[in-house]
Amino acid sequence: MSPRNAFYAQSGGVTAVINASAAGVIETARQHKTKIGRVIAGRNGIIGALTEDLIDTSKESAAAIAALKETPSGAFGSCRYKLKGLEESRAEYERLIEVFRAHNIGYFFYNGGNDSADTCLKVSQIAEKMNYPLQAIHVPKTVDNDLILTDNCPGFGSVAKYVATSMREAAFDVASMAKTSTKVFVMEVMGRHAGWITAAVGLAEDAATPIPLVLLFPEVVFNEEKFLRAVKNKIDTFGYCCVGVSEGLKNAEGQLMGEAGTRDAFGHAQLGGIGPKIAQIIREKLGYKYHWAVADYLQRAARHLASKTDLEQAFAVGKFAVRFALEGKNAMMPAIIRTSDRPYRWKIEAAPLAKVANREKMLPKNFITKDGYGITQHARAYLSPLIKGEAPPPFKDGVPRYVRLKNTPVAKKLAEGFAQK
Amino acid sequence: MSPRNAFYAQSGGVTAVINASAAGVIETARQHKTKIGRVIAGRNGIIGALTEDLIDTSKESAAAIAALKETPSGAFGSCRYKLKGLEESRAEYERLIEVFRAHNIGYFFYNGGNDSADTCLKVSQIAEKMNYPLQAIHVPKTVDNDLILTDNCPGFGSVAKYVATSMREAAFDVASMAKTSTKVFVMEVMGRHAGWITAAVGLAEDAATPIPLVLLFPEVVFNEEKFLRAVKNKIDTFGYCCVGVSEGLKNAEGQLMGEAGTRDAFGHAQLGGIGPKIAQIIREKLGYKYHWAVADYLQRAARHLASKTDLEQAFAVGKFAVRFALEGKNAMMPAIIRTSDRPYRWKIEAAPLAKVANREKMLPKNFITKDGYGITQHARAYLSPLIKGEAPPPFKDGVPRYVRLKNTPVAKKLAEGFAQK
Repeated sequence: MSPRNAFYAQSGGVTAVINASAAGVIETARQHKTKIGRVIAGRNGIIGALTEDLIDTSKESAAAIAALKETPSGAFGSCRYKLKGLEESRAEYERLIEVFRAHNIGYFFYNGGNDSADTCLKVSQIAEKMNYPLQAIHVPKTVDNDLILTDNCPGFGSVAKYVATSMREAAFDVASMAKTSTKVFVMEVMGRHAGWITAAVGLAEDAATPIPLVLLFPEVVFNEEKFLRAVKNKIDTFGYCCVGVSEGLKNAEGQLMGEAGTRDAFGHAQLGGIGPKIAQIIREKLGYKYHWAVADYLQRAARHLASKTDLEQAFAVGKFAVRFALEGKNAMMPAIIRTSDRPYRWKIEAAPLAKVANREKMLPKNFITKDGYGITQHARAYLSPLIKGEAPPPFKDGVPRYVRLKNTPVAKKLAEGFAQK
Repeated sequence: MSPRNAFYAQSGGVTAVINASAAGVIETARQHKTKIGRVIAGRNGIIGALTEDLIDTSKESAAAIAALKETPSGAFGSCRYKLKGLEESRAEYERLIEVFRAHNIGYFFYNGGNDSADTCLKVSQIAEKMNYPLQAIHVPKTVDNDLILTDNCPGFGSVAKYVATSMREAAFDVASMAKTSTKVFVMEVMGRHAGWITAAVGLAEDAATPIPLVLLFPEVVFNEEKFLRAVKNKIDTFGYCCVGVSEGLKNAEGQLMGEAGTRDAFGHAQLGGIGPKIAQIIREKLGYKYHWAVADYLQRAARHLASKTDLEQAFAVGKFAVRFALEGKNAMMPAIIRTSDRPYRWKIEAAPLAKVANREKMLPKNFITKDGYGITQHARAYLSPLIKGEAPPPFKDGVPRYVRLKNTPVAKKLAEGFAQK
């Protein structure tokens, strides 16, 4: 009997290193050909499974799969498509199993954040109900770092390194211009609910390189008067000020201050624009000349500045996902366990999805300074190892050389298509 | 008789490599101690000279000066302060000579763009009128690449590399999300009048890596209907579209579309915000989900991604400025002369400032494709060598380690201060 195939899909916002997890899954599966047949990927995530739009990764060379470790974005396509409860979305879950059955899928690897951890768990449940043998393993990924049970989340370390580096560079720029020109620089960063990325901006400064930073966390209600005092204090002392603001900053009424008015497929508000708003407030009330930046996708796609630690962990969670499957585990997630801060040491353990799904890991209170505008030593001890190490991609003609896979389709086996809702 | 000192100052917006020019000046001057005494820097640019706020660079170690090559921003401070005509600003020019005389300055190295080339020329003229022996050499610097007589301008190549890399990375991100989410990504780039940086965004794609790009140059009047057609075409063909837009984009009436309403010290409009405006137009008229980024200072401060070619040229113009001075040259600028495209070869020659000042080098017409939205092979042949090579700075704890100089003041010698106008 030929071994059963594996299904792999990428879900939600992509990162600089999610493809390293894909490489971890595929390379490890290829090492166990007697137990795992082909790795079949969903084109554009779980939608590829629902519509039987599948990719045969066995058609890719070893070099192409290895190059995934150097390539940002989702090589097979990702999607924002959330399956709801088992009853509400029953037809979709059953369709997944039907497609898996048609393609002899015995392993389900789902690479995403909180929403997809939940989906992964439900897929394992419906398979059990339908007496379809399937091992469902979630591969953690999110720049937001808000998955519980894992010390940190692959994707986050590289964004953290990007925002810390970018703010340090911009601060040097502003410091040299502040005498006659720009005195305030505002950088907006991602992180919808939890201030992990905002906290990482704090790594722009350290003892050897003091920078007058004011951070606006989504966890700290915006108080305009107090904030303006903090900015003015920095300018009076240092001559300039750098502000890192979360896209998720909220006012006293709990409203998102950067709300753009549109919503994504998950019903989340589409954000963007709090950076210029904060800059404008400073200009109007304090009169300083400002500049602002919104890096947006640049921060999560910046493979050229990926954290080596992050890259290694992204690969490891992919690798361990396959190992766990081979060990017979189901409804689990490879979690990163920190065993030491200094020197930083970590290992991978299996965490049950039942405990992961639909919960968010918020920034601990003791990570934020008492005034609400900075990070503490606790935060530094946690964050600092995650951005360490450089792992630049190969460059050709001055720009990074990233791989594009062939993404050869798997022939369809089911007569009927599936209409997405 | 002790040798006469040199004065060095940084002017206007700083870059990722202007400090490499400073290192070129200082290291070369240190090699000729019998002819050049100390290099005295102006704190915050020319304002430092006017107010006799001077820095003694001889107090810096060789290691610190070498580290300038790895550090973005202006290490001595820069300023946006334009001296006007010789008659209009006569008191200021005379004050400069008074300060130079007090500190035995025989060499004036002014590191900046078009405005400072003009100032440098006038300083050499006033010195001659006042019978003060002075050699004034302009050291070219501007991310805008709009100085004439030089093939390109130090500072530009690194911004070009940054925008090309960032757009490539964002394009990979959007490509993987486009099926169910973001279909349009808009990135706003610097370049007030000339579209050099906008053109560099075009290097994000090449034959091996096609990307559906639409570029909005400041040279091409914005035509909304035609632009929306171009975007829709790209999305119909590729499933997504990436737009690179210049901060200097103008409408049919010649107005800046991103005008923020404020002006800098030179009377230039402060820009920023055309990126989100273009994204909004696409959303309203075509209905696509969008994301936008405004990198702002991040693009010109990104020493972590500097072009090695740019870095070498920035150092070379500093080095040759001193050599030219030692050869007795005056009112000159080291210009980069391209002697070959493939392989790329360049040399430094002296260009007379009288021909440089107050003129701008615009993007040649044959660099822009007929439809107005892309770059031609002429543009690629010119731009491509300028972004080549990587020269990452040292990293410590995950972030680049940049030097901060001691910036020891020179004791004042003049009784009277100088009130800036």
